[in-house]
Amino acid sequence: MSENFIHQSMSIIVEDAIKKATDVREKVCEWRSPEQLKELLDLELRDGAESESEILQRFKDAIRYSVKTTHPRFFNQLYAGMDPYSMVASFIIEALKPSLYTYEVAPVFTLVEEAVLKKMMELIGWKDGGDGIFNAGGSMSNMYAVNLARYRCCPDIKENGLSAAPHLVMFTSQEVRFLKWKMIPSALEEQILSAKSEGAVPFMVNATAGTTVLGAFDPIDEIADICEKHNLWLHVDACWGGAALVSSKHKHLLKGIHRADSVAWNPHKMLMACLQCSAFMVRDKTSLLQRCHSARASYLFQQDKFYDVSYDTGDKSVQCSRKPDAFKIWLMWKALGSRELEQRVDRALAMARYLAQEIKQREGFRLLMEPEYANICFWYIPPSLRNLPDGPELWGKLHKVAPVIKERMMKKGSMMVGYQPHGEKANFFRMIIISPQVSRQDMDFVLDEIHNLGKDL
Amino acid sequence: MSENFIHQSMSIIVEDAIKKATDVREKVCEWRSPEQLKELLDLELRDGAESESEILQRFKDAIRYSVKTTHPRFFNQLYAGMDPYSMVASFIIEALKPSLYTYEVAPVFTLVEEAVLKKMMELIGWKDGGDGIFNAGGSMSNMYAVNLARYRCCPDIKENGLSAAPHLVMFTSQEVRFLKWKMIPSALEEQILSAKSEGAVPFMVNATAGTTVLGAFDPIDEIADICEKHNLWLHVDACWGGAALVSSKHKHLLKGIHRADSVAWNPHKMLMACLQCSAFMVRDKTSLLQRCHSARASYLFQQDKFYDVSYDTGDKSVQCSRKPDAFKIWLMWKALGSRELEQRVDRALAMARYLAQEIKQREGFRLLMEPEYANICFWYIPPSLRNLPDGPELWGKLHKVAPVIKERMMKKGSMMVGYQPHGEKANFFRMIIISPQVSRQDMDFVLDEIHNLGKDL
Repeated sequence: MSENFIHQSMSIIVEDAIKKATDVREKVCEWRSPEQLKELLDLELRDGAESESEILQRFKDAIRYSVKTTHPRFFNQLYAGMDPYSMVASFIIEALKPSLYTYEVAPVFTLVEEAVLKKMMELIGWKDGGDGIFNAGGSMSNMYAVNLARYRCCPDIKENGLSAAPHLVMFTSQEVRFLKWKMIPSALEEQILSAKSEGAVPFMVNATAGTTVLGAFDPIDEIADICEKHNLWLHVDACWGGAALVSSKHKHLLKGIHRADSVAWNPHKMLMACLQCSAFMVRDKTSLLQRCHSARASYLFQQDKFYDVSYDTGDKSVQCSRKPDAFKIWLMWKALGSRELEQRVDRALAMARYLAQEIKQREGFRLLMEPEYANICFWYIPPSLRNLPDGPELWGKLHKVAPVIKERMMKKGSMMVGYQPHGEKANFFRMIIISPQVSRQDMDFVLDEIHNLGKDL
Repeated sequence: MSENFIHQSMSIIVEDAIKKATDVREKVCEWRSPEQLKELLDLELRDGAESESEILQRFKDAIRYSVKTTHPRFFNQLYAGMDPYSMVASFIIEALKPSLYTYEVAPVFTLVEEAVLKKMMELIGWKDGGDGIFNAGGSMSNMYAVNLARYRCCPDIKENGLSAAPHLVMFTSQEVRFLKWKMIPSALEEQILSAKSEGAVPFMVNATAGTTVLGAFDPIDEIADICEKHNLWLHVDACWGGAALVSSKHKHLLKGIHRADSVAWNPHKMLMACLQCSAFMVRDKTSLLQRCHSARASYLFQQDKFYDVSYDTGDKSVQCSRKPDAFKIWLMWKALGSRELEQRVDRALAMARYLAQEIKQREGFRLLMEPEYANICFWYIPPSLRNLPDGPELWGKLHKVAPVIKERMMKKGSMMVGYQPHGEKANFFRMIIISPQVSRQDMDFVLDEIHNLGKDL
């Protein structure tokens, strides 16, 4: 490795992947079809080596044709924007190559994880703390919750296997019909009773705090009542909505979350930590997490070590190598403080309200529902369809509008906003507002641009 | 964000986390107990913000007290060393924040993953290709294999649930007794027949290519015969040993791997890609991976997109956000070429042979077994124990030697080598040799240093 190569690489990263990628005057993406891009990139792996200058060009090309998810006009997913503190933290992780399982191999990151989990559990409202780990994503956190709930219900499951377990049933909200996008507590209880009457064993309820498409919050407090009554494990998937807990103005959305047995919360979403940064937390303090997942690998978790082995957290995890993702939020939290995190969340949600207002006022736009959170769902109705009566013809035609506008915005590279159908609803746009770099002008731009791209349809 | 802050951060990373961390004259670790380190780091998260200079100091402290896993004297885990190409690739990923599920959000990385999987499957020997994804680690790859094997065996399991499935049984080698550290094909077949006679349904065999402690390889070809005969899914966990496939000299260790139904192989181990870089591959070409895991999220996998949606790979995965880890091996493969990768593996394995020879020749060292791969397992017998006869007293005393030497090397910071007991065997050292930065002098240093640290015991 030449030192010069490292410096040149760093300079490309700063110029192209940081400054240019976040510059509003640049494109969000430079669209190429898979076939075109394969020709441009020369992807095949061969026997021979390439020169450092060829590799530097590959860096540039990879950045150039990648989508700039940190660009101020990227509203396509549940993450966006760029926090420089978190980014530097993630560079440090990549350079040091740590893996979290034993204190001896990752002393700093082990303690950092503990500190971040402590703070997050404080915000959840678990006054006596609890336990937890960061892991590879929200789906994995939810899997941990299922494992723990099942283990509590069937403590001999590791020895006797699934085939010896009863017919276990869990409940979650299904965002299928529109006036029912939240879990309805009375319907939940009916289903629990019905499952029991069929001889099944209900063991868990998953409540969602911030659904992916609509940003809806299940009524946690009422669901907790039912879980307590029937002795069910209550897991709250707050991967997206958990960030509201840092805001005294918005934390009411998660009222009752302190009664959950476990919580999933991803700071890489609304809090803008680098990907991945996903916490799974459990209120239990009897080592349930470790007892459920422990494999006691002799080459990692020796009991004759010279330090307190309770700091070896790896046996709580289903992964062996595990990245120290908590560092990415710890460092930015230190740099910003809770107050600035709160302001960011408040600002994003205020911007979402502003956009919803604008949509209601502008001709040709129709809001799907009042936003609870940072998801703004709406239709754009081109002038040619505005005089059609509300009915199958209108919705059938409208269904085809969003995909065309999306194609045009991608090819132009001006912004990225997602669309989807939902239940019986025709394709609509879903704007996600997260980044503090975003302004009212950006909101206006999005609506203007959608109109410009779709007015001829 | 000030541009100056980014530049200062980058300069700390280059100086402290790259150059100093890999400098053999520096310490591998600067040991502090959890209690001491908590005081040094001030981990608590507060309401107020810290200044940029305070944050820069935090970067330095985090690096200073972290273990340098890229240091030439780090032999403690199944990964080591630093590849600059892979490191820069991982920085680019962190800066761009891509997530792999749809082509439109991660065009470059989607195609890169496809190209790397193609090459890896070629090395496995699947002439007609197959399918696969990179994921969050080897344990997860193995979980994918279980999912697929079960799904093939019970195609209605997603609709009917586990409680409707028969009593499923899988087989894996258990490294418990020493002359049996590999799977014994005849014993495997006996157990399959025995499980069937009890009414259970065998569905899968997991063969290990490179075990974690001993680096042992199960006889894949013979196991494949049995799997074919009994129609069992054959998964090969080649997370550690898969790298031998790049070497014409050593690939015989995995003879028969082309007959596997699925393979897990982690280029972040022996091939030195940055963490994580873990591939799961499956020979099936009927979309089994997608059919088994598909959740058809309407907000990601719209079927009315303007490009070929077969490039949207996210529905194969149990994760939603998924990092483009293949880029970390693709870029270094481009830079080095297959030939240089092969030389690296050959060099590491030659170095392992050299160390084994040295251990056999030196007084006070005893090799546990001839290495097949890069794991060298051995005891150090201090002079005071050398005259004891082979028996319980010797082994009882020897069991306490390795932990003390490990404590002393950690506190000195001179190197890191792991130890563990294994079955009935007393604590022994396990050296892992990976990095091309390592020389014969480093091997000699390790043995000299162990003697120096333990000769008074």
